[in-house]
Amino acid sequence: MGMLVTVYRKEHFNAAHRLYNPTWDDAKNKEVFGLCNNPNFHGHNYDLVVKVKGPVDPDTGYVINLKTLSTIIKAEVLDRYDHHNLNMDTDEFNPEKGGLIPTAENISVIIWQRLRKHLQENLQLTVILYETERNFVEYSGD
Amino acid sequence: MGMLVTVYRKEHFNAAHRLYNPTWDDAKNKEVFGLCNNPNFHGHNYDLVVKVKGPVDPDTGYVINLKTLSTIIKAEVLDRYDHHNLNMDTDEFNPEKGGLIPTAENISVIIWQRLRKHLQENLQLTVILYETERNFVEYSGD
Amino acid sequence: MGMLVTVYRKEHFNAAHRLYNPTWDDAKNKEVFGLCNNPNFHGHNYDLVVKVKGPVDPDTGYVINLKTLSTIIKAEVLDRYDHHNLNMDTDEFNPEKGGLIPTAENISVIIWQRLRKHLQENLQLTVILYETERNFVEYSGD
Amino acid sequence: MGMLVTVYRKEHFNAAHRLYNPTWDDAKNKEVFGLCNNPNFHGHNYDLVVKVKGPVDPDTGYVINLKTLSTIIKAEVLDRYDHHNLNMDTDEFNPEKGGLIPTAENISVIIWQRLRKHLQENLQLTVILYETERNFVEYSGD
Amino acid sequence: MGMLVTVYRKEHFNAAHRLYNPTWDDAKNKEVFGLCNNPNFHGHNYDLVVKVKGPVDPDTGYVINLKTLSTIIKAEVLDRYDHHNLNMDTDEFNPEKGGLIPTAENISVIIWQRLRKHLQENLQLTVILYETERNFVEYSGD
Amino acid sequence: MGMLVTVYRKEHFNAAHRLYNPTWDDAKNKEVFGLCNNPNFHGHNYDLVVKVKGPVDPDTGYVINLKTLSTIIKAEVLDRYDHHNLNMDTDEFNPEKGGLIPTAENISVIIWQRLRKHLQENLQLTVILYETERNFVEYSGD
Repeated sequence: MGMLVTVYRKEHFNAAHRLYNPTWDDAKNKEVFGLCNNPNFHGHNYDLVVKVKGPVDPDTGYVINLKTLSTIIKAEVLDRYDHHNLNMDTDEFNPEKGGLIPTAENISVIIWQRLRKHLQENLQLTVILYETERNFVEYSGD
Repeated sequence: MGMLVTVYRKEHFNAAHRLYNPTWDDAKNKEVFGLCNNPNFHGHNYDLVVKVKGPVDPDTGYVINLKTLSTIIKAEVLDRYDHHNLNMDTDEFNPEKGGLIPTAENISVIIWQRLRKHLQENLQLTVILYETERNFVEYSGD
Repeated sequence: MGMLVTVYRKEHFNAAHRLYNPTWDDAKNKEVFGLCNNPNFHGHNYDLVVKVKGPVDPDTGYVINLKTLSTIIKAEVLDRYDHHNLNMDTDEFNPEKGGLIPTAENISVIIWQRLRKHLQENLQLTVILYETERNFVEYSGD
Repeated sequence: MGMLVTVYRKEHFNAAHRLYNPTWDDAKNKEVFGLCNNPNFHGHNYDLVVKVKGPVDPDTGYVINLKTLSTIIKAEVLDRYDHHNLNMDTDEFNPEKGGLIPTAENISVIIWQRLRKHLQENLQLTVILYETERNFVEYSGD
Repeated sequence: MGMLVTVYRKEHFNAAHRLYNPTWDDAKNKEVFGLCNNPNFHGHNYDLVVKVKGPVDPDTGYVINLKTLSTIIKAEVLDRYDHHNLNMDTDEFNPEKGGLIPTAENISVIIWQRLRKHLQENLQLTVILYETERNFVEYSGD
Repeated sequence: MGMLVTVYRKEHFNAAHRLYNPTWDDAKNKEVFGLCNNPNFHGHNYDLVVKVKGPVDPDTGYVINLKTLSTIIKAEVLDRYDHHNLNMDTDEFNPEKGGLIPTAENISVIIWQRLRKHLQENLQLTVILYETERNFVEYSGD
């Protein structure tokens, strides 16, 4: 078995979203979410870094072929979220249909779950999501 | 009179938008604007660089006090567009109300016009707008 | 209880400093600290990344509201160090008053201590401090 | 003669400075320069981009050998300003000795003058100086 | 006719190259080109920024559809140079076959020529090529 | 003993390489390595971040003097790989001489081994290697 190395792949998508909790009234939503609560949505250039730790295959020198990883990210994340409205175009981020509030935290958890099922069990997965250059999050399945 | 120096100030806003031309049918809109035509909007972290060229004031060593410039940008651009939907929350980018299509090109022109009126006549103004790290535009009033 | 996610907030301050150990003579100070020992100070644009790991609150989708975190960082770090001389304007980095030498390592430890007391016990805190793009440090309370 | 191409070289220095006009009282200095007026100095990581436009030499494929340009920048700028206090360690930025106020504007003008004399007459020189990522200036000798 | 706006598109390619002038002996080549003269080649991640200035089309809000521009850059530049050896895999940068020395200057000129023929005459073209973060060049057809 | 802090130093080198497994035929090499298999090599600007965790020395405020660390990195990595062809100019990355395939994973492992022997035993070492902005790896000795 090869040495344990971590590989990272950075991808990108642009999306609109809005933060609100449908069980709260407008005043409480505004107080908690501030400008992010704007009813007509706003948007971000999301930078997504996918991190996979595992043994290096001595035949390829790869932990995982990044082309394979890229294909999985495209199918599970980019095709679904890029140039979309997270609240309106998906169920998982529509709080009125039982979805999660599309904070960076929750988006990273959902992306982790969507990618996890495609990776071999001996690989550890972490998702890092930049909402802006100054606000970002990380989720490792804990 | 002082030497002619150019000063730059970088600011930031996040907004949702959608590209479409209301005089075209859906097929033509989709063909020209592709993913950017998504009816439920998508969004961006816009980086805005404002560039002002003029003489250095020998008393201050400044072309323009960047705090003053920042205050103008905040009032004219950030307070108006940050965490908003350009199509729905403004008239200037609502093509159905006679506004312009909110492409980066048109946004840079409108921002230039909004800032120009606050600057002394001897100062030259350029607006650079990053829609993404890879797509950006520049307008100098030509 | 929610899933464990890490959130990051990036802030910025500009400060002057000088590295020297008052128990050493000039020659030894110069040998160890080189240019950083310049008696008239030099300075940096410090980038500060504050990292907080904890459970996601299902009502807000947040680990911690980044506005709250920003307010704490402003009060404890930016208001105190931004546009100041670390050696002359503070006691904690004045080695002649028993303070620490203001290396990036020591600054990260002091910032960690100043922030730690404001966070709930179940949150883990890490401070990352960039002195330049090429020299940076990280402290997690170990 | 070769085609006209512009080459850029990016360098870096760290320095302390303070903005004040010795002909004004403290209140006026504070009002104009704000935090930058702090009497004990603050500092920056200055990024310096030197831009030279001229014909490509067909024998080398170079406008100017960047190693030569680097050596000039080191001698004229880095050795003089890096890890120094602009106000205290130089005369040109000590307003009490008739020097200029060390704003980014004035620093770019002085650097331009120091570099200009080393370049052949047919080369056009521009100096771009980043005081922070968000505040920067450019001077071309106008 | 619309207002004159400049649009930028950033692309990327990785290539190997070697600088040498076949009319010189080894000593002179080493003296002029230094490490870049290594006979077994070295390589770079080239960042390419293509800049097009022209009138905004009022029907689309575009100077040029960036998808069209991207397709041209892919066909003329990326498919030809990405993951290739500029000296061995092309004639234009093989000095022994009468090609140019593959300095950043010469590469920018050739890329400009390859792109120019695909653009309408009323559009002005500039090519910016980053060989590293610290060394870059610009060519506008002069 | 001081507190445990992690320090990071970022360095840079440019190199050519080619991915292939000499025990496979051409078709299999092309299938697995794609464009990276180009027989004439391609190249990268490698960014290298070296991360060292250990106690802060109370006399210096340093975990390790970054000048010392830089000197080690220069001798072991930059002097050996910068402006070289990893496959042709070294044995460790020449698969035909029993070397490893020069993937980012394998390069990070070799760099880790070359640096590890120069550091005191109580220091933990991690190597992060950026092949491009979007593809990077990390190795900690596991």
